[in-house]
Amino acid sequence: MGSLHPPRRFLFGPGPTQIEPRVYEAMSKPMVGYLDPFFFQVNEEVRTGLQQVFGTKNDLTLAISGTGSAGMEAAVSNFVDPGTKLLVFSAGYFAERIAEMGRRHGANLVRAEKPWGEVFTEAEAREAIEREKPQLVAFVHAETSTGALQPPRWITKPAHEAGALVIADCVTSLGATPIRVDESGIDMAFSCTQKGLSCPPGLAPFTVSPRAEERLRARKMANPVWYLDLKLLMEYYGSMRRYHHTAPVSNFYALREGLAAILEEGVEQRFDRHARMHRDFVRRIEAMGLKMHVTDPALRLPNLNTVRVPEGVDDQQVRRTLMAEHDIEIGAGFGPLAGKIFRIGVMGPLATPQGLDLFFGAFERSLAVAGASAARM
Amino acid sequence: MGSLHPPRRFLFGPGPTQIEPRVYEAMSKPMVGYLDPFFFQVNEEVRTGLQQVFGTKNDLTLAISGTGSAGMEAAVSNFVDPGTKLLVFSAGYFAERIAEMGRRHGANLVRAEKPWGEVFTEAEAREAIEREKPQLVAFVHAETSTGALQPPRWITKPAHEAGALVIADCVTSLGATPIRVDESGIDMAFSCTQKGLSCPPGLAPFTVSPRAEERLRARKMANPVWYLDLKLLMEYYGSMRRYHHTAPVSNFYALREGLAAILEEGVEQRFDRHARMHRDFVRRIEAMGLKMHVTDPALRLPNLNTVRVPEGVDDQQVRRTLMAEHDIEIGAGFGPLAGKIFRIGVMGPLATPQGLDLFFGAFERSLAVAGASAARM
Repeated sequence: MGSLHPPRRFLFGPGPTQIEPRVYEAMSKPMVGYLDPFFFQVNEEVRTGLQQVFGTKNDLTLAISGTGSAGMEAAVSNFVDPGTKLLVFSAGYFAERIAEMGRRHGANLVRAEKPWGEVFTEAEAREAIEREKPQLVAFVHAETSTGALQPPRWITKPAHEAGALVIADCVTSLGATPIRVDESGIDMAFSCTQKGLSCPPGLAPFTVSPRAEERLRARKMANPVWYLDLKLLMEYYGSMRRYHHTAPVSNFYALREGLAAILEEGVEQRFDRHARMHRDFVRRIEAMGLKMHVTDPALRLPNLNTVRVPEGVDDQQVRRTLMAEHDIEIGAGFGPLAGKIFRIGVMGPLATPQGLDLFFGAFERSLAVAGASAARM
Repeated sequence: MGSLHPPRRFLFGPGPTQIEPRVYEAMSKPMVGYLDPFFFQVNEEVRTGLQQVFGTKNDLTLAISGTGSAGMEAAVSNFVDPGTKLLVFSAGYFAERIAEMGRRHGANLVRAEKPWGEVFTEAEAREAIEREKPQLVAFVHAETSTGALQPPRWITKPAHEAGALVIADCVTSLGATPIRVDESGIDMAFSCTQKGLSCPPGLAPFTVSPRAEERLRARKMANPVWYLDLKLLMEYYGSMRRYHHTAPVSNFYALREGLAAILEEGVEQRFDRHARMHRDFVRRIEAMGLKMHVTDPALRLPNLNTVRVPEGVDDQQVRRTLMAEHDIEIGAGFGPLAGKIFRIGVMGPLATPQGLDLFFGAFERSLAVAGASAARM
């Protein structure tokens, strides 16, 4: 097969995003066993770091051995019994995925829907919750398919008043923008490692509130998914250290190192940096005469920008030019937004003035190429 | 948190096992997106390499984004409907895990049992299959908890005659000893990356026979586990490239590099090397007056040796001395074999005369320390 020579990309897409050399180095450090005391030390550092980026004191905070979608599956499979009434607030692709998982696990599923790119107001959430009386509510904090940021309290407040537990998909927000799980009243949150945490994909950060942990411990039915059974995972990672599966040790090393880098920068400083770069990004986009897809600036995800594709421009051609001539990856729109938006991640090591200069130089040129070829047609 | 400084262990346990520098290096190569053409090229190389170590032409051969246990969960969840009659041949811990997963997915579960360390003869398998008439049969090719190797044909022949499909757990055999999936008549096999393939944990090699693929395509019920739904994974990895989840790219790089190293050595040459080192291992164990747990030499796993703990020796003390004074990890027995066996992996870069010398020097010394302290009591 010869040697492995990956191209060097600048990852301005929704993820995986750019990774710092120290994280790559961590992955290449010597393997230890899954019951080695050193592994449990790394695991404790991972747990502590995750508590800080999640903004939680939840004891049940861990990294699940799979990608962000495995985190979503863990949230659904550990808390949905057949017949559990689950209300999903849906304004994008990932909310629909939660709904689909709920359906497969036998939930009595109801959905509240809004157009892709919008969020639910507290009044809208309250109305749906009072009407449906769900036991479990799910929403997407950072909808990767639309670039919208759902304020958690608008969902959790009416949900808790109605006695429901709340799942939040934080796949794209964790590490780049505040979640503040405890203040927000989120009961179960899951995420991934390859977006705001600037690590390779392969683990799903996960946190469970004491109230949800109680519900979990009282659950009579065994999780149909043995691999993602939180009760068994608690026995493995807890003081019992009872073997469950072989943790992906190198991915834990990488996540530990990525979290260490975040703590060195300072969690709040990192959030501020992403917010600042987001404001600069929007300013430069608007100066080009382009429009952001999410209209309310307060409801935009700071680290994943969705930009409307200008009239008459072929978005595929722009992405192709960016990739072929600048080694820059950005994301396409999909579902109802296919061809209508670019999804541009500005995260981690690329969320700097230099990162923005690099991006805009290439983006302006690629748009000009696409515009010129549109004019020729 | 400071820098990450893992201890350097010699991994003579059941896995994770020793990793070659080139595999570590592969993991630290630049990340690309999950839809990048380079990723799909790597994925094709992984698929081709896996076909060779599995010994199969199965088109549906892939790496699942989770550890070996996720592979087991994929096998069960994609082929067990509620009420499916599943017969598990159980003579160890991992067979019991398949049974437990089957139970959770609603199988009509029956088990054939033998003591830990034995395997089923063709007559025994036939008798159970004719009695139970299962739709699905599962067995463990390489039982990590006992060191026994179940000849696949003894199970698949009577199973196929009765019209059942056969799942084989190949977690500990893949890459170190022949499986020959096609000749053996195995319909679904799953494995891991951190044992015979000498890679870090995090992916589950998986292969499905054309007959089982047909059964899968005809399945009416959606897999309750969205994350492990093979139909969706086929759309992602196939020509459609329809987004499912974000593949753990660095783990794919590592697996690709581990497979490249195996193909360079030659798959059959690698199997022969493990068989030779196993014979040397047994000769040296017996020369020490110790006994192998699996009595029939033909039914021993060549890469995971189970050795009886000598009378009066505290196995924990031996393992503690090996780790503390020699940085050597070996595995303990568990379940009915707790305290009764050592599980000693001789795989990959350590399956060499030098690896054996290193191991036996430390093992003899650690046993002597434990023996002396037993004599003092």
